Amino acid sequence: MSDNKSNKVFIFAGRATEALARKVAQNYGIELGKSAVFQYADGEFQPSYEETIRGGIVFIVQSTIPPTDNLFELLMMVDAAKRASAQKVIAVIPYYGFARQDRKDKPHVPIASKLIADMLTAAGVDRIITMDLHADQIQGFFNIPMDHLFGSSLFMPYIRSMEIPVEEILFASPDMGGSKRAGVYAKTLGNSFVICYKHRNKPNEIGEMRLIGDVADKHVILLDDIIDTGSTICKAAGIIKEQGAKSVRAMITHPVLSGNAIDKIEASALEELVVTDTIPLKRTSPKVHVLSTAWLLAEAIRRIVNYESIDDLYETTIHRKGIVDRM
Amino acid sequence: MSDNKSNKVFIFAGRATEALARKVAQNYGIELGKSAVFQYADGEFQPSYEETIRGGIVFIVQSTIPPTDNLFELLMMVDAAKRASAQKVIAVIPYYGFARQDRKDKPHVPIASKLIADMLTAAGVDRIITMDLHADQIQGFFNIPMDHLFGSSLFMPYIRSMEIPVEEILFASPDMGGSKRAGVYAKTLGNSFVICYKHRNKPNEIGEMRLIGDVADKHVILLDDIIDTGSTICKAAGIIKEQGAKSVRAMITHPVLSGNAIDKIEASALEELVVTDTIPLKRTSPKVHVLSTAWLLAEAIRRIVNYESIDDLYETTIHRKGIVDRM
Amino acid sequence: MSDNKSNKVFIFAGRATEALARKVAQNYGIELGKSAVFQYADGEFQPSYEETIRGGIVFIVQSTIPPTDNLFELLMMVDAAKRASAQKVIAVIPYYGFARQDRKDKPHVPIASKLIADMLTAAGVDRIITMDLHADQIQGFFNIPMDHLFGSSLFMPYIRSMEIPVEEILFASPDMGGSKRAGVYAKTLGNSFVICYKHRNKPNEIGEMRLIGDVADKHVILLDDIIDTGSTICKAAGIIKEQGAKSVRAMITHPVLSGNAIDKIEASALEELVVTDTIPLKRTSPKVHVLSTAWLLAEAIRRIVNYESIDDLYETTIHRKGIVDRM
Amino acid sequence: MSDNKSNKVFIFAGRATEALARKVAQNYGIELGKSAVFQYADGEFQPSYEETIRGGIVFIVQSTIPPTDNLFELLMMVDAAKRASAQKVIAVIPYYGFARQDRKDKPHVPIASKLIADMLTAAGVDRIITMDLHADQIQGFFNIPMDHLFGSSLFMPYIRSMEIPVEEILFASPDMGGSKRAGVYAKTLGNSFVICYKHRNKPNEIGEMRLIGDVADKHVILLDDIIDTGSTICKAAGIIKEQGAKSVRAMITHPVLSGNAIDKIEASALEELVVTDTIPLKRTSPKVHVLSTAWLLAEAIRRIVNYESIDDLYETTIHRKGIVDRM
Amino acid sequence: MSDNKSNKVFIFAGRATEALARKVAQNYGIELGKSAVFQYADGEFQPSYEETIRGGIVFIVQSTIPPTDNLFELLMMVDAAKRASAQKVIAVIPYYGFARQDRKDKPHVPIASKLIADMLTAAGVDRIITMDLHADQIQGFFNIPMDHLFGSSLFMPYIRSMEIPVEEILFASPDMGGSKRAGVYAKTLGNSFVICYKHRNKPNEIGEMRLIGDVADKHVILLDDIIDTGSTICKAAGIIKEQGAKSVRAMITHPVLSGNAIDKIEASALEELVVTDTIPLKRTSPKVHVLSTAWLLAEAIRRIVNYESIDDLYETTIHRKGIVDRM
Amino acid sequence: MSDNKSNKVFIFAGRATEALARKVAQNYGIELGKSAVFQYADGEFQPSYEETIRGGIVFIVQSTIPPTDNLFELLMMVDAAKRASAQKVIAVIPYYGFARQDRKDKPHVPIASKLIADMLTAAGVDRIITMDLHADQIQGFFNIPMDHLFGSSLFMPYIRSMEIPVEEILFASPDMGGSKRAGVYAKTLGNSFVICYKHRNKPNEIGEMRLIGDVADKHVILLDDIIDTGSTICKAAGIIKEQGAKSVRAMITHPVLSGNAIDKIEASALEELVVTDTIPLKRTSPKVHVLSTAWLLAEAIRRIVNYESIDDLYETTIHRKGIVDRM
Repeated sequence: MSDNKSNKVFIFAGRATEALARKVAQNYGIELGKSAVFQYADGEFQPSYEETIRGGIVFIVQSTIPPTDNLFELLMMVDAAKRASAQKVIAVIPYYGFARQDRKDKPHVPIASKLIADMLTAAGVDRIITMDLHADQIQGFFNIPMDHLFGSSLFMPYIRSMEIPVEEILFASPDMGGSKRAGVYAKTLGNSFVICYKHRNKPNEIGEMRLIGDVADKHVILLDDIIDTGSTICKAAGIIKEQGAKSVRAMITHPVLSGNAIDKIEASALEELVVTDTIPLKRTSPKVHVLSTAWLLAEAIRRIVNYESIDDLYETTIHRKGIVDRM
Repeated sequence: MSDNKSNKVFIFAGRATEALARKVAQNYGIELGKSAVFQYADGEFQPSYEETIRGGIVFIVQSTIPPTDNLFELLMMVDAAKRASAQKVIAVIPYYGFARQDRKDKPHVPIASKLIADMLTAAGVDRIITMDLHADQIQGFFNIPMDHLFGSSLFMPYIRSMEIPVEEILFASPDMGGSKRAGVYAKTLGNSFVICYKHRNKPNEIGEMRLIGDVADKHVILLDDIIDTGSTICKAAGIIKEQGAKSVRAMITHPVLSGNAIDKIEASALEELVVTDTIPLKRTSPKVHVLSTAWLLAEAIRRIVNYESIDDLYETTIHRKGIVDRM
Repeated sequence: MSDNKSNKVFIFAGRATEALARKVAQNYGIELGKSAVFQYADGEFQPSYEETIRGGIVFIVQSTIPPTDNLFELLMMVDAAKRASAQKVIAVIPYYGFARQDRKDKPHVPIASKLIADMLTAAGVDRIITMDLHADQIQGFFNIPMDHLFGSSLFMPYIRSMEIPVEEILFASPDMGGSKRAGVYAKTLGNSFVICYKHRNKPNEIGEMRLIGDVADKHVILLDDIIDTGSTICKAAGIIKEQGAKSVRAMITHPVLSGNAIDKIEASALEELVVTDTIPLKRTSPKVHVLSTAWLLAEAIRRIVNYESIDDLYETTIHRKGIVDRM
Repeated sequence: MSDNKSNKVFIFAGRATEALARKVAQNYGIELGKSAVFQYADGEFQPSYEETIRGGIVFIVQSTIPPTDNLFELLMMVDAAKRASAQKVIAVIPYYGFARQDRKDKPHVPIASKLIADMLTAAGVDRIITMDLHADQIQGFFNIPMDHLFGSSLFMPYIRSMEIPVEEILFASPDMGGSKRAGVYAKTLGNSFVICYKHRNKPNEIGEMRLIGDVADKHVILLDDIIDTGSTICKAAGIIKEQGAKSVRAMITHPVLSGNAIDKIEASALEELVVTDTIPLKRTSPKVHVLSTAWLLAEAIRRIVNYESIDDLYETTIHRKGIVDRM
Repeated sequence: MSDNKSNKVFIFAGRATEALARKVAQNYGIELGKSAVFQYADGEFQPSYEETIRGGIVFIVQSTIPPTDNLFELLMMVDAAKRASAQKVIAVIPYYGFARQDRKDKPHVPIASKLIADMLTAAGVDRIITMDLHADQIQGFFNIPMDHLFGSSLFMPYIRSMEIPVEEILFASPDMGGSKRAGVYAKTLGNSFVICYKHRNKPNEIGEMRLIGDVADKHVILLDDIIDTGSTICKAAGIIKEQGAKSVRAMITHPVLSGNAIDKIEASALEELVVTDTIPLKRTSPKVHVLSTAWLLAEAIRRIVNYESIDDLYETTIHRKGIVDRM
Repeated sequence: MSDNKSNKVFIFAGRATEALARKVAQNYGIELGKSAVFQYADGEFQPSYEETIRGGIVFIVQSTIPPTDNLFELLMMVDAAKRASAQKVIAVIPYYGFARQDRKDKPHVPIASKLIADMLTAAGVDRIITMDLHADQIQGFFNIPMDHLFGSSLFMPYIRSMEIPVEEILFASPDMGGSKRAGVYAKTLGNSFVICYKHRNKPNEIGEMRLIGDVADKHVILLDDIIDTGSTICKAAGIIKEQGAKSVRAMITHPVLSGNAIDKIEASALEELVVTDTIPLKRTSPKVHVLSTAWLLAEAIRRIVNYESIDDLYETTIHRKGIVDRM
């Protein structure tokens, strides 16, 4: 088929992350694709493309944050794009919701993030672009290709630009599970890291927090993939400060920030919370600094379209966080 | 495998139609299955079964009314039931949402009700029970068996119980598309019917309404599958009354009743709106009478479990509304 | 892969509509692809391509009129094309047979048109082109893209070319179900329409026919998608004429014309029956006028190959016959 | 679910082999299931079950002889049975048509018997019962279980019942490809076999025939799976007789007998043609003897229902015709 | 179908873990199913069932340890069981090989354990029983039900039976990733745990090891799911002993024990290595103690057959190791 | 997408036939693609691509000779290529192992070559290139396109180059099953052929061999697809020589040559064994002559990439060995 037509790239926005989608399109150098959502009185809705996409490479940008109307809107847009004869449909999901339901953590529950993977595949998605999945194994929930981007592509330059001597920076993980991430950042800068550790009995409750390692006279940076209620991070920041740190920051990719999380942040020992725009903030705060992922997503799109490698998009050491470990 | 165990029937409720599910279980003669939904601070949720369902026949009652959290909760419950080793998982969907998106009514849109059919199938549903689908063809969106029940099983006995001489009853369809339904009711009672007809330019707007047939001195019953904003029905009732009907009622299976629909009903020429409980009402009204589908759903479940025919559940003439028409 | 090769378009004919396929190829500007069908003594057959189609875009034109050897020949051609390394295989099905079996109109029957959709998909079809499906919902039986063309693209120009003043034209539907179609034609020309209405007890029998609206002094055009035995149309024409119409015509896309249907037409009050060539006529008749769909199918193919929109192929108002209706 | 109901066995007939189906039901000890086929004027048809089959084990007997309406009727019956909630649907296909299209014997052709396997699977068949497949590998075209029966279960008893001394019996294969079959029969009786060999340039033409082995003073039995035009068998019989055989018979499972095959048989040197009733004969002939497969199919059904082994249904040596050969 | 037959349970062995399979059958109270594997001269092989399994519930016990002949033998046995009409085929995979390839840990690699999940599903497995998966998310690689058993069901009773006061026991994780496991054991006994931590640059090399927590005067138990080369565990044991522990043991479910791992264990500070028999040992050692999983697997099979819950098979607190963590 | 990139062709080697893959790449005119296999201590392994293959046409050359690690390595490479965004993945399988398990030759066994076809399809292969499949029907095990090459493309030129007058050449089949192959070679050269025939009771044992036809004063060439233990061929060569042939050679595509097969060849009456390099030889022998398939595979790749027909790659008469045979 004629190739000038079939090369055409479209970037469309779902309603959950429309501002981000617009920025991605700008960074890519095209106008955001024209689409609309007809909203019915009863709560049903129907997205539609307001331009012809036949033979096009269609990127749909939508974080699947709750409620699931966002997910379903994305699925409907994929279905519509397929039926409207798009050549390829790529779901750009900056924040992959329900990722924390990635295994049966107790009997008789679903594995929601696999269910969502099956839905996306059934709807006809050809490829996924996403960022900082809560668990790397979610890649295996898909048989279609996935481009997995990393927040470190934004945080590392930001750290380097801060006016703090590298040797005074100390990374911290708010829990055991995140120790690998902290370790990789530390290794990249050639310094050390500390780990917070907590006991807890029930979800959404917090236990006693302890700290492994010495933070005195350091500028500490807490790292994580998701900040939800903010309790853990604030608690961790408090202890770190108590134990003599010069300052405490947090750099966390996905700002879920449920309930009064921003209030907690503002009241906490944190000097700054640096997040990305994979999820729009409910309100701004002088303490919350947002780095945009738009250039990164646009660059990923450009490389996909041009069949270039994605791997050198991020510093290799960061990427290889899942170093094979077979002792 | 041991059959006493594998015969066990469970009826669980999704949150959209929990009261109905409880009544269905009562009518069936068992307790509603124990399940829970953990609601996270960010809007995510996780259903779980709070009893063992291994080898059981699991019925999950959930109308898929908007928002799609209701649909997704159903899908998650199906996934969880499959992973918890249920023998069969049957989705009981009294009101099948998004059914009005059953074809590409304009270019570049999804076919949402097919998409939902694919989701249900991908999640592992073995069978569907539903009522008065907006289009019969939706049955063909599934390759799994479907038991399609009819509101007429409730409305016909209700009509017979009204203190109105049969010969004074006149059925009416609010639009051309519903003329078949009105015709079948009329034929069952051996009387006639009339048709309302309307022109309209845009969705959610109403055009001029006209009436085909004579309503003078009749007790008119308007029939439909869904009442959404209520505009059409109220307009039709007005014209019918203007043209000399003794009274006007409406009998409509699914009470979507968006926005201020109940207010409109109350202000209209309608004497009564009879609906079912496939969708819970937002508020009660002296004009709105609800017939429960619980006994019908329970009886369908009983027959499925006992491998008995569903067909004689409803008056045959009503069922065969789709008479083959090949002239 | 090398693109000059991969752009090559082939149009092949099944045996059911070979003449039409040849015209489609002519209109497209290429020779009809060379294929053969080896017919065995026992009734089995084996189609084969007599030229190399590697990497080509293969269009196979075949109406799936009974017997099902026509359908199966199409399926075998699809299978052979896939195994012979065609890049894309598009089934051009001007008349989609068995479409009237689109739902379970009584218990214990198949949904044949869904079954056929599944067969086509299983055989490896990448896309469907078809015309005036008996029910729009059949689009939802497929998950592959479908281009749905309309007979109105032929009938509207024909009507405009007739030497009848527009204000004397009146559209008519032979039954309630077709009232939408008649309404859309009427709206396009800015005039009115009437509806025939019939009661009937069994398939292939005809009941009493009644007419809604005034036809006096009008040139009436009956509209439908399929003419099978012709009984309904002839009856409708008779009544319309009786009630004072100046003339009655019928414009119907698919001329199934079973049994002695053409005899009936000739003996009827119809002045003319205008059909298309989606099904070859068993015999010609001075009353039956055939409009060829070849240019329309060829243009659809050209646009598909060039990734151009199909939507402006037909007058928009006609297309949007399925206007969303949510009152 | 209640097991008395779910154990119920139904045997239905397609129209191609209705008499055989009736006999199978008789042999099994039940009435043939009530079904009907509505035949429309245009050649379309719609099968339906005229009794409730919920939860039943449904066997549908239909040889898929041409035309493909027979195959499609079977597929529609499978679809209808699935949608009518049959527990299991088993296709009993005594003669599996199109089996000779089991590989790409030249470029650009379909593999029809794989296509049919995919259709049956897509329609929802749970299991296949068939007889003497043209190629054993067709079993591998299915991923569902298949019970493969053998004509030898009928022919061996028949041979033993003939009043011919075993040592005078000589088996013959009409071609190289059938030498294994002849060898297995010979081995079972402890005697020898001969092979006919032919050159040929085009399908449906016959070349020069030669014979390997000595037939003098023997009663020769030609063996094959399918007799189509009859040319090869008649030619072989002629040569065998010429070379001094006392008599020549043929025992062939599937009597396709196209065109004037029976005339040829009658005019040939064959004393007798023994076939089965997997395909109904177009006419009877004093030379053609039909053995019924009804008891064999009924016994296979009984064993499937009772989960008994099928293997001892036939003499083991016959079955193992595909002995592993790895030198 | 007749239920006495369909209830029959079979337990078959693959060749990788034949001794374990035999013990499982003994514990279950039946004879190990009769099967054979024909081994060809060239290295190919063909498993076969030497008894009828029609309608049976077939459990196939095979750890998928390298080489992949073991995996492929299991897949072939599944395929053979399906084709031999088993009602259900359950793969009992005590050790799920290739589980450490559960995500793309670097660019351009496969996700082997997802690939294997897809193979098992494609071959027709109905259910998986396995133990201590390397990552819980592998459950999500399957859409079929999985029963996930835990080594703690063996280790906790063993620990309780040791003549060491509970308060002197201290659990240890050999790395950060295992801290949750150690935490759960600790919590169950009501005591504390320590964590080893190591830096490392390349696979199969060991970095410097450090210890978090105080081990003085404790009897330390190192916990893990897999012991492969043994380097990490031996190193950890050494450091723990150096820092004043009274004794060091390791309890690890899957004894891969590559190369000279047992020599290393014998030369190490470990007093005892307790493993299970999910993988047969290459040689015995006075230091290596094997606990059999046979009773646990047999009990799981019994409960599956009887539709009883598996959950109370293990101490709940151990099971819920994946406590939801949403701060 | 940009086409210069998407046209890039890669040829990678599995470890089973690395030397052949390298030659194929040379013949094609590119460097062998850079890949690696990380081998773990326990026998597991992980292939990876060491260059970017985004959008590329990836050919992976690997004969699936036992052990199945070779097959599984191929499957892993396919999975990795898909996940690394290759546009197309083509498995080049010069020798398709387990092909002799192509049907259920006895009860209760798998159909291994279908299982492997399903594995390859599930892993995401887009196309297969293979040579001289043991049974043509294996093509039907796949629904993806297959290019089936023939050893005759190498053997016929070799025969023509031998200094033997064509009229003294006589072809021979070592068994009945191969008579068609011998017949086609004979027809191409315009001469005759003979057939060996053997009885045998069990696999891997040899029965008495007999010869059909006269070999005196001829140079005999035995033909087959696979030489495994070599017993049959050596026996056949002996008898042929005994009966007065001037010389005996064998030309066999796939040199499995299990155990001491080469010793047997050297001790036999065979003057020469000509094979191809679809399987690497364990040792060289003056009697064994290897023809490389590299140019043929490279040419097939070139034609696939350029969408040219494969059919004229081999002499047509050879290809059409499966002449339709319907007498």
